[in-house]
Amino acid sequence: MRAAVFNEPRSITVADRPDPVIKDPTDAIVRVVLSCVCGSDLWYHRGDSPFEPGPIGHEFIGVVEDVGAAVRTVAKGDFVISPFAFSDGTCPHCRHGITSACSAGGFYPSNGDGGQGEGVRVPLADGTLVAVPGSGHSGEKMASLLTLSDVLATGHHAAVCADVKPGGVVAVVGDGAVGLSGVLAASRLGAERVIALSRNPARQRLAREFGATDIVESRGEAATETVKELTDGVGVDAVLECAGTGQAMLTALSIARPGSMVGYVGVPHGVELPIGDMFFRNVGVRGGSAPVRAYIPELLPDVLEERINPGRVFDLATDLDDVAEAYRAMDERRAIKSLLRVGTV
Amino acid sequence: MRAAVFNEPRSITVADRPDPVIKDPTDAIVRVVLSCVCGSDLWYHRGDSPFEPGPIGHEFIGVVEDVGAAVRTVAKGDFVISPFAFSDGTCPHCRHGITSACSAGGFYPSNGDGGQGEGVRVPLADGTLVAVPGSGHSGEKMASLLTLSDVLATGHHAAVCADVKPGGVVAVVGDGAVGLSGVLAASRLGAERVIALSRNPARQRLAREFGATDIVESRGEAATETVKELTDGVGVDAVLECAGTGQAMLTALSIARPGSMVGYVGVPHGVELPIGDMFFRNVGVRGGSAPVRAYIPELLPDVLEERINPGRVFDLATDLDDVAEAYRAMDERRAIKSLLRVGTV
Repeated sequence: MRAAVFNEPRSITVADRPDPVIKDPTDAIVRVVLSCVCGSDLWYHRGDSPFEPGPIGHEFIGVVEDVGAAVRTVAKGDFVISPFAFSDGTCPHCRHGITSACSAGGFYPSNGDGGQGEGVRVPLADGTLVAVPGSGHSGEKMASLLTLSDVLATGHHAAVCADVKPGGVVAVVGDGAVGLSGVLAASRLGAERVIALSRNPARQRLAREFGATDIVESRGEAATETVKELTDGVGVDAVLECAGTGQAMLTALSIARPGSMVGYVGVPHGVELPIGDMFFRNVGVRGGSAPVRAYIPELLPDVLEERINPGRVFDLATDLDDVAEAYRAMDERRAIKSLLRVGTV
Repeated sequence: MRAAVFNEPRSITVADRPDPVIKDPTDAIVRVVLSCVCGSDLWYHRGDSPFEPGPIGHEFIGVVEDVGAAVRTVAKGDFVISPFAFSDGTCPHCRHGITSACSAGGFYPSNGDGGQGEGVRVPLADGTLVAVPGSGHSGEKMASLLTLSDVLATGHHAAVCADVKPGGVVAVVGDGAVGLSGVLAASRLGAERVIALSRNPARQRLAREFGATDIVESRGEAATETVKELTDGVGVDAVLECAGTGQAMLTALSIARPGSMVGYVGVPHGVELPIGDMFFRNVGVRGGSAPVRAYIPELLPDVLEERINPGRVFDLATDLDDVAEAYRAMDERRAIKSLLRVGTV
């Protein structure tokens, strides 16, 4: 099969790779229809994080081609969503809803295949894959279904960790695809006011479409001051930190009102938590890799019934062969998020 | 009046101080009946934190002697509890339940009087003081009422921040009066299992009395291993970090299962939060100065009806004149918490 591979920083190509085959009876083989590039893929692309050369990508939807003898919940021909982590659904962490910490699970491409290729061996298929009902979904809905493999669920995780409540005032730091998904997630959870920090007109527009009521263009201390002004000096009830940088976290903490939470989902890079200030202001932090699998049952109906259109985060689509451009466009912030057309349903 | 004063590290004496008088129409003057020494008082006593020479202490119950013209909710003769922070009860932070962040409020002794003296000018009396119904309370109940000014409410805050739920498995790091109060609070909130980390027999006994189901005597990595063994390798559902040291926080984070919270209430000294590990394990932290005033309405009935006996944390009682010994006994861990008999009802 053809699949994207990482060679070294700034070198991503498409290569021939072995077709995935069933290794364990709990495996499924999925033929990928749509995949995409994640903000976290940019870390190794830029050389900011170490990464093994080889297959890449962890977000995909596709069609089940084969299943191992022990698989019960999906079957050949099913159209499925895979979360970026595979999980058995039965271990204590899964039962507590933290499928991304599954004792038996792992993250793509530790299974041997990345999501940015024509096929994937999906371990623990019963715990991992979610079959999508219906067929003939529009291109727009297909893109939205793809966001359930990571970005929408990750934005939702930030909102859950930040304890977003109906009627609350929420701020979102970071205007990447995750931040914008966080705006959508906060709005979906009933936030009355969603303040998006963004200075990019296209991202501002999408933030508004996703439910942002206010846009703050300033950064750093000026942003803190503006958000404080917007909230009569109080600060917001919940903050979603969706960038993962030290500055983003400090801004997030500073605009959170006493007693509130910062939900963070960007892999921390250069983040130091100012515990003295957090203690003094009673502001907490919580976050990590989103337990995507646990969230899909709640989010999927809203996508299927088009109450939300999270696929709008994709503003570039390429074929698998052009994966390098898909990465470059995101790296250069020409694209919010790049979709990869890999196969057909 | 007579009041304890801090002169310099290891020098606490009783001195003559001006009788408190009404300065603002929202003030009340309280004649102190019982006061006590806080674990946080030990920081300046030991010279580990800077502190202005002068009046000290912030936990007291007593009788209202006088009120300013604007005071409506308490009157001369009322027997009252004062939280360690004064607050107006009307600002946005108070309305959100974080009275310790009141925009107009503050902490004793910034009002001019400490709680370890015969009288206190209480600012914002309507927002701050809670009148205790009934009279003729036993000595035991009086001690328990005193814990509502700080230590029980602080243990409760740790439990609330740690998101203790009925049926959950909870661990408490720190066997000081706050930690033991945390055991009581977690048990009161319905935790099925409360694991107390303590190697002191007297504190272990009190922890058991307060609801601890398991005692772990080891520390550091050995403690982590023991708690993991006790929980089938999973970790606990909620951790109360009640010591404020770096080691205590690391232990707390390491025994928290993925997706859980560490509630922390010890003023952080030398604490650095390992954000990478927190992210990887989806473990959050939340805490700070307890919003005591907001918690009293929930806790007071349980004390009055003797469903809980938090005053058991006091294992030494001295007269005000012996305040130096009250501090020394706690500093040397001869006492869990020292009560000061200051006046009579």
